[in-house]
Amino acid sequence: MRASSYEGAGRFRIGEAPVPAAARDEALLRVRRVGICGTDLHIFQGHLDHRVPRGGVIGHETLAEVADAPPGSGFSAGERVVVEPLRVCGACRACRTGAAYLCYSLKVLGVDEPGGMQEYWAVATPRLLKVPATLSDDEAAMIEPLAVATHDVRRAEVKAGDAVVVFGGGPIGALIAMVARHRGARVVVSEINQFRVDMLAKLGIDVIGPGRDLAAFVDAWTGGDGADVVFEVTGNAAAVRAMTGLVRVQGTISMVAIHAEPLPVDLYRFFARELTLHGSRLYSRADWEEAIRLAASGAVTLAPLVSRRIPLESLQQGMEEALRGGPVMKVLIDLRA
Amino acid sequence: MRASSYEGAGRFRIGEAPVPAAARDEALLRVRRVGICGTDLHIFQGHLDHRVPRGGVIGHETLAEVADAPPGSGFSAGERVVVEPLRVCGACRACRTGAAYLCYSLKVLGVDEPGGMQEYWAVATPRLLKVPATLSDDEAAMIEPLAVATHDVRRAEVKAGDAVVVFGGGPIGALIAMVARHRGARVVVSEINQFRVDMLAKLGIDVIGPGRDLAAFVDAWTGGDGADVVFEVTGNAAAVRAMTGLVRVQGTISMVAIHAEPLPVDLYRFFARELTLHGSRLYSRADWEEAIRLAASGAVTLAPLVSRRIPLESLQQGMEEALRGGPVMKVLIDLRA
Repeated sequence: MRASSYEGAGRFRIGEAPVPAAARDEALLRVRRVGICGTDLHIFQGHLDHRVPRGGVIGHETLAEVADAPPGSGFSAGERVVVEPLRVCGACRACRTGAAYLCYSLKVLGVDEPGGMQEYWAVATPRLLKVPATLSDDEAAMIEPLAVATHDVRRAEVKAGDAVVVFGGGPIGALIAMVARHRGARVVVSEINQFRVDMLAKLGIDVIGPGRDLAAFVDAWTGGDGADVVFEVTGNAAAVRAMTGLVRVQGTISMVAIHAEPLPVDLYRFFARELTLHGSRLYSRADWEEAIRLAASGAVTLAPLVSRRIPLESLQQGMEEALRGGPVMKVLIDLRA
Repeated sequence: MRASSYEGAGRFRIGEAPVPAAARDEALLRVRRVGICGTDLHIFQGHLDHRVPRGGVIGHETLAEVADAPPGSGFSAGERVVVEPLRVCGACRACRTGAAYLCYSLKVLGVDEPGGMQEYWAVATPRLLKVPATLSDDEAAMIEPLAVATHDVRRAEVKAGDAVVVFGGGPIGALIAMVARHRGARVVVSEINQFRVDMLAKLGIDVIGPGRDLAAFVDAWTGGDGADVVFEVTGNAAAVRAMTGLVRVQGTISMVAIHAEPLPVDLYRFFARELTLHGSRLYSRADWEEAIRLAASGAVTLAPLVSRRIPLESLQQGMEEALRGGPVMKVLIDLRA
């Protein structure tokens, strides 16, 4: 079969590999789509070399069809599934307290262990979820990022009427905006990439584009109170500098982005306004189920977020393009191409 | 009467001033004790010159007796009272949502408006609370910092069995430790001042003193999980560097200290462990009532925290000593001396 492998130092290799053998509790999946995610770009840049083995197969936003499943697993050949790409210990404090996705020994498939950027993939069946027939392959490949957004919005306790600011209008930022809006919140997204500004506007999302004064906008928008919730999804220091100034008394900042280095934070503002900052990572099973419901009901619009599909052989080029920014939202690898 | 006034640039003046005239809703108080607080030291250093007027009277940790009160106010001459030193607008979002102490137009008595470092003080009667007869003047003067600690512990939702780390064993840190312990938490305090280390130990509080490896201690203490709650009460950058490494998955950091400048924060740790940081400031009326209950019941030990009483005339010297650190916990100004 065809498979990718991470060679380190910004290089991927595409080549032949043996079809993985499925263990007793695993299904053998034939992969259809894998999204390229911000985490994958961190891997590409070597930021996760302490976790991703040389020769490892990355990719954790996967739509696949079941090629073979163990009897009694509830899955059968031909069914389309998405993959909750986590392996947890089941025994640590996080696992025991309902936050297994933060397991102290967490392994992420596609980071620490083999992921979806290969033709066939063996995955434990408890990690599979069935995809409603109404969703296209492209839409179904967006369920993983939608589960992230669902988790982020739930954890931030966004309520109807809330004023919500999202720093960053990439796929996760756009999905957070849609999920928050579905909850009845008023949402603005701050984004500097003009392609994304235009796409968000077409999706009916209010965007504060480059050159506009976000702080002044939020001040006027909220009658001087400040926003209820701010999501930081860019990973840029500028957003970290700005975020504390936008939040109302006892408001919330949700840290969705990965900041590789410590950054200066206005801690006085946290004290003075009793702000809350929390990290928001991955998803629980409930977030996946909610994401599938939201996708199937049409509450969020997924298809326009897919900018293009590329064959596995273009992975290297796709990574390079994604890193440069430019006119792109989500890029999917089409394993059938 | 004798009164202090802030002259700017680290200088206080003690002199004669007219007795304040009480407005219709105000009682005239005769001040007995005023604590010197960390905020007062910030004022002393000029950090709050944008709020404290030249010639202003500071002091917000006050025990007084009523000299005269309006009829129907519920207060009468001779009663001992403590002062919730806040003036709020009653109309803004914070006031309307049960967090009036974070009023967008908040005035703190003793910072923005006249405080207790004067013989007589006129204060609106809704801001007074009666002091149980069983409490000494020194103990009663500690009710304000105890209300701060009560607020901090409540806001951090400290529960029985929690592992709690307090950075800083000054008066607020010590009181947070006692209130958290009263809730059934296990508590350690990190402190470098040897006088305070010894005093906390005498009060039965576990202290990690200078030269000990706090991170290794917490790791062993919590079986590798990390602490449930960390309180940052020092205002030092070292504590901000260390705090994120000590907290369990989905644990809480409470920012009680004032950090005048933005400091580097390990935001990746917030993401990876879904940590929460919140600011914690001042108190609600319920915190004051709880503080009085805790003090009167003996659940917390207040008297040993008072290192000494000084006359108003020694204010300047008291500030300078407090800033140098040294063998001191709480210093009270005794207005009767």
